[in-house]
Amino acid sequence: MSSQTGKNVKVSVFGQSHSQCVGAVIDGIPAGEAVDMEKILCFMKRRAAGNNSWSTGRREADIPQVVSGIVEGVTCGSPITVIMENKDTRSSDYGDLKFVPRPSHSDYPAFVKYGEAHDIRGGGHFSGRLTAPLCFAGALCMQILERKGINIGAHISSVGRVDDAAFDSVELSVEELKSAGQKQFPALDDAAAAKMIEAIEEAKSKGDSVGGTVECGVIGLPAGIGEPMFDGLENRLAAALFGIPAVKGIEFGKGFDSSRSLGSENNDGYYCNGGKVKTFTNNSGGILGGMSTGMPVIFKLAFKPTPSIALPQKSIDLRTMESKELVIKGRHDPCIVPRAVPCVEAVTAITLLDLIYEDRRYEH
Amino acid sequence: MSSQTGKNVKVSVFGQSHSQCVGAVIDGIPAGEAVDMEKILCFMKRRAAGNNSWSTGRREADIPQVVSGIVEGVTCGSPITVIMENKDTRSSDYGDLKFVPRPSHSDYPAFVKYGEAHDIRGGGHFSGRLTAPLCFAGALCMQILERKGINIGAHISSVGRVDDAAFDSVELSVEELKSAGQKQFPALDDAAAAKMIEAIEEAKSKGDSVGGTVECGVIGLPAGIGEPMFDGLENRLAAALFGIPAVKGIEFGKGFDSSRSLGSENNDGYYCNGGKVKTFTNNSGGILGGMSTGMPVIFKLAFKPTPSIALPQKSIDLRTMESKELVIKGRHDPCIVPRAVPCVEAVTAITLLDLIYEDRRYEH
Amino acid sequence: MSSQTGKNVKVSVFGQSHSQCVGAVIDGIPAGEAVDMEKILCFMKRRAAGNNSWSTGRREADIPQVVSGIVEGVTCGSPITVIMENKDTRSSDYGDLKFVPRPSHSDYPAFVKYGEAHDIRGGGHFSGRLTAPLCFAGALCMQILERKGINIGAHISSVGRVDDAAFDSVELSVEELKSAGQKQFPALDDAAAAKMIEAIEEAKSKGDSVGGTVECGVIGLPAGIGEPMFDGLENRLAAALFGIPAVKGIEFGKGFDSSRSLGSENNDGYYCNGGKVKTFTNNSGGILGGMSTGMPVIFKLAFKPTPSIALPQKSIDLRTMESKELVIKGRHDPCIVPRAVPCVEAVTAITLLDLIYEDRRYEH
Amino acid sequence: MSSQTGKNVKVSVFGQSHSQCVGAVIDGIPAGEAVDMEKILCFMKRRAAGNNSWSTGRREADIPQVVSGIVEGVTCGSPITVIMENKDTRSSDYGDLKFVPRPSHSDYPAFVKYGEAHDIRGGGHFSGRLTAPLCFAGALCMQILERKGINIGAHISSVGRVDDAAFDSVELSVEELKSAGQKQFPALDDAAAAKMIEAIEEAKSKGDSVGGTVECGVIGLPAGIGEPMFDGLENRLAAALFGIPAVKGIEFGKGFDSSRSLGSENNDGYYCNGGKVKTFTNNSGGILGGMSTGMPVIFKLAFKPTPSIALPQKSIDLRTMESKELVIKGRHDPCIVPRAVPCVEAVTAITLLDLIYEDRRYEH
Repeated sequence: MSSQTGKNVKVSVFGQSHSQCVGAVIDGIPAGEAVDMEKILCFMKRRAAGNNSWSTGRREADIPQVVSGIVEGVTCGSPITVIMENKDTRSSDYGDLKFVPRPSHSDYPAFVKYGEAHDIRGGGHFSGRLTAPLCFAGALCMQILERKGINIGAHISSVGRVDDAAFDSVELSVEELKSAGQKQFPALDDAAAAKMIEAIEEAKSKGDSVGGTVECGVIGLPAGIGEPMFDGLENRLAAALFGIPAVKGIEFGKGFDSSRSLGSENNDGYYCNGGKVKTFTNNSGGILGGMSTGMPVIFKLAFKPTPSIALPQKSIDLRTMESKELVIKGRHDPCIVPRAVPCVEAVTAITLLDLIYEDRRYEH
Repeated sequence: MSSQTGKNVKVSVFGQSHSQCVGAVIDGIPAGEAVDMEKILCFMKRRAAGNNSWSTGRREADIPQVVSGIVEGVTCGSPITVIMENKDTRSSDYGDLKFVPRPSHSDYPAFVKYGEAHDIRGGGHFSGRLTAPLCFAGALCMQILERKGINIGAHISSVGRVDDAAFDSVELSVEELKSAGQKQFPALDDAAAAKMIEAIEEAKSKGDSVGGTVECGVIGLPAGIGEPMFDGLENRLAAALFGIPAVKGIEFGKGFDSSRSLGSENNDGYYCNGGKVKTFTNNSGGILGGMSTGMPVIFKLAFKPTPSIALPQKSIDLRTMESKELVIKGRHDPCIVPRAVPCVEAVTAITLLDLIYEDRRYEH
Repeated sequence: MSSQTGKNVKVSVFGQSHSQCVGAVIDGIPAGEAVDMEKILCFMKRRAAGNNSWSTGRREADIPQVVSGIVEGVTCGSPITVIMENKDTRSSDYGDLKFVPRPSHSDYPAFVKYGEAHDIRGGGHFSGRLTAPLCFAGALCMQILERKGINIGAHISSVGRVDDAAFDSVELSVEELKSAGQKQFPALDDAAAAKMIEAIEEAKSKGDSVGGTVECGVIGLPAGIGEPMFDGLENRLAAALFGIPAVKGIEFGKGFDSSRSLGSENNDGYYCNGGKVKTFTNNSGGILGGMSTGMPVIFKLAFKPTPSIALPQKSIDLRTMESKELVIKGRHDPCIVPRAVPCVEAVTAITLLDLIYEDRRYEH
Repeated sequence: MSSQTGKNVKVSVFGQSHSQCVGAVIDGIPAGEAVDMEKILCFMKRRAAGNNSWSTGRREADIPQVVSGIVEGVTCGSPITVIMENKDTRSSDYGDLKFVPRPSHSDYPAFVKYGEAHDIRGGGHFSGRLTAPLCFAGALCMQILERKGINIGAHISSVGRVDDAAFDSVELSVEELKSAGQKQFPALDDAAAAKMIEAIEEAKSKGDSVGGTVECGVIGLPAGIGEPMFDGLENRLAAALFGIPAVKGIEFGKGFDSSRSLGSENNDGYYCNGGKVKTFTNNSGGILGGMSTGMPVIFKLAFKPTPSIALPQKSIDLRTMESKELVIKGRHDPCIVPRAVPCVEAVTAITLLDLIYEDRRYEH
């Protein structure tokens, strides 16, 4: 336990890669919110494996079936449940894996934790497949946030050693925020994108995989969102975003770079612009003391390379403890980062809506 | 809300920098655990401001007063409450600050969130002072963990652009883990330490401050600890550790570096050593799928430079919205990182004990 | 929010009376628990509307479809999700009701809370239909509890003014506990049962309904289960059991009767029997200080009469605020109590398993 | 774990009867709320043992010391902490009790749960003494509720077999609600009060104790407060109120009486009065589907007789399992009910404020 995030908007994700369904229960969405299902489907398509060089061969239609909580396109106030059938599963690919853990997958600790009852097929509950219902929930939350003037966007910030441009952390516009998401390969800079695709294809051709980073931005979030100490924006975003498989690091604003700087370089001085309080720089990534400052919220996530590679790897048989060379079958993304971009946006949306509902000022 | 962390061991931190007390309620510690108060006091001294160049001039005795939950040196099963009086406060230093926010402090968003009722003095509830009760709670949890064979240690990994050596992520020993903590300046490498101190003193002499990183390691944690998706080790550690003021980033294992690598470079192959499952490398930082692998848990935190600097800064008066040059009085650390080391250990201990108690296997 | 109960075993119930499905996500069940689906179906049949005088005319097959968390009859450790389709719905019966609230139903406060978006059909999320997934979850938890030697049983304690016999609160056996549940009309005493059926049929013949009480017992629960103050057995059982529609009161042991007694009459003296600590009487209902004493846990619930009656009632049109005579169509139980018996057992099972997993002693 | 109630206003109670302090952390109160400390002290005096025949001989000044969260009489938004020293303790009275459990006290299950480490002195964490910080928290919440037009009042409804008058559940006024609380013996009817006092004095003179009931009413609560299924008003009130020691039952509205009635008798028909939706009767106690209806909320609690009586009782020595006659020393209330009245109001206030903050409509 527990595959649940949020306090005020609770999203409970269920399913295994090869169970009958994956899905989510979304509790805490107020009644009366119109749901644009077309827009949700569009969003989910960004996550789905496409007909391109960087996606898995597994094809899931990912048709979300809403079985409760939405009546005639409007939320009714009771929990919203979505299910998506798993259709294109090849469980036979996983027969041997139960006792021969794939390096850098969850197999070994899951075996220790759950024993032989663990559903190893396709990674079970630890599969990236579980991000499909997360994207549904996120797309729903995003619609509510947009009606409040809050916009979220992300892009691939790097693949391997190829870097994309960065968001303008001070003057970020909705256009810039949303631009990458509209492309098939979601990077800001098309020249960088071409090199990234090259890097992915090279890895793929060698039976290898490659990691990358995603930068996410939020604009329109009013100042003061986020709760003290353990429930700040950074705490809650990090807690939720590490729920996306393969995330190994997160930094807000200048993050690790700010640790190498002086206070005089890093501090964001204030000025007033048209009655609005702004900062000259935004090294803080729009968050101070865990609370939003009103400036764009900016953070970056590190994704490790997909652990499933075609190259032979060293493992052991957990029954005999003998060494075993492992060659992974199954279909996998050579780089998870392009498909992770909408997942990052989705989890961000869920978390922000959750924190907005927690803010006491709305009560007054 | 809410200054509380944990599900099974709940630590609720209270107090403001200049309120009568700071303290914590620690709920969920089983009855019958012996508490070595001497050891706790030693641990807390590592956090306290010392008579050295890198600490604030504010001196607090930090005598923890246990007012409930421990009877004759043993936990009785009911909530443990500790309070520490705030004595060396100079609230007058903060008279003007309510309306002129200090750059990169929580002042401005706190003002928006709480209005004029916000207790700005000394940073209020957002002050680093609140880490004192956290250290008490962590030191207590650490004793219980050590009786289970789990050891935690951290060190300064960098100050500004000066790097320390790194933990051996594969063969980490208790000695290596604990070595930095026994020094006045908690770095592994003494030559690096000397340069770091130099960097701090240089910043201080200019009225400036400098950031840094802390690396933390855990050994002895059995495999399988951590819950799926949103309650994995990474999620819960990140959620708690961002509660330490000035943390702006976290990475597990190779973290951001792994995002620049190939799967074949990053994957940790398995072998068996004396009946124990081990990995040749530990790029995962001892965590896969949110669960411990049995290898050392390794992560690094980025701390921004202390935002309180003596240099004049640009701010505004929130009443008139006019620009205002701000010169901060008060006493502050030119580099928060040395004193943050035990805080990182403490929060790690609280989080791990919390997750251990959540593991269902203990029930069988 | 929120249709979720439990901390360690979390059951999230979703669905509306006339949505596509009702269901539940059950999170926190350890891996490796065998699930006897036959037994669950038997249990659920006790809740289903039967071909008898006291049940609604609505017939739902209530075939639970497990879409995640159970693989080949064994729990795999990830969330267990069950869905049941709603088939026999007649939404047209509810066309007028949105603005003319049925007396003593949730209609009016739900209208105020959710506005016109509220799904009034069949009572929406407030319908007794939602107890079907609860019964699935409870039947599952019950199997795990029984493997620990803990048995739960309930019976109709009264219908209108007709009383059943009471459980022997001191020497309660599994046979006595389970006897009523095996009957079509779940009372201990058959003569009383006949009179109760008579009372129900009389109410029904007049277009009226009648209330009643359910007594529930638990044996085999070890002493010391239940957490202090707000998480005692009484707190948690009450919190969960009021989730069953129509419950208006709960008492543990002698309950309201003990309020009319002297300490010398009410106190349960101790003795030792075969090495086991027992009490001569069990006026406490097996609970002291919120913790189990090792004696049978006994409590009673008051159910109000089904608010849906065929007789004309006084209501208003919420649009015009004019008085309106209301005649309720739709199909309803003249007495909900017989079908509530398994629901009480189910919710009790969920709650006890939840609290057992919270007990720190299991960790040692 | 855990001595904490609430989701949005979290009250964490700490302390044992004979620890240095008892107290509470109250998290989630918005910034800017004025706190009338005089009024809180008045309220707490109602709970304190008085110089009368029905109270314990233990005298505690109960001076609440606010050590965080309130600055110059106004909440600052961070957790509010109150501590009260335990002064008049006589721990020697409890020397023998650790191994000879007092009948119908928490001693035996606490011994099983916590072992010898349990703090038995004065009942430890299970003592009624812990209601002192609860009353502080409740009095604070009550001030905020009153500013929203919500008033809470309670009275002794019965002592032994002597009944008080009942609140007018349809036309309840603030005057009626508050009248009993202003009396030394908080009953509505003075003649009944005299007989109750007589019943208490008679029990006391015989070394015995007597139980009773408390009725509580709330007016001004808007319709629609309370969340579905497990977080309704009844669930949350019951969950919290069973936290008051000695509570063994709760019923809302007609409660157990409604279980003996017909739907046509029990249903509350609607009418409109001056633009307000009202019901002719209020058998539902102002709650339907777990949500407030706008009518007065009415419920009744059963308190068992104080288990501490002077008469000799049957117990056992847990070391030898031999029978032992027990004579309880220490100072105890012959009837806890008069002092429980403000506790009921306090817990009700905490719970209602918590639920009001959960209501999503406030967000719009």
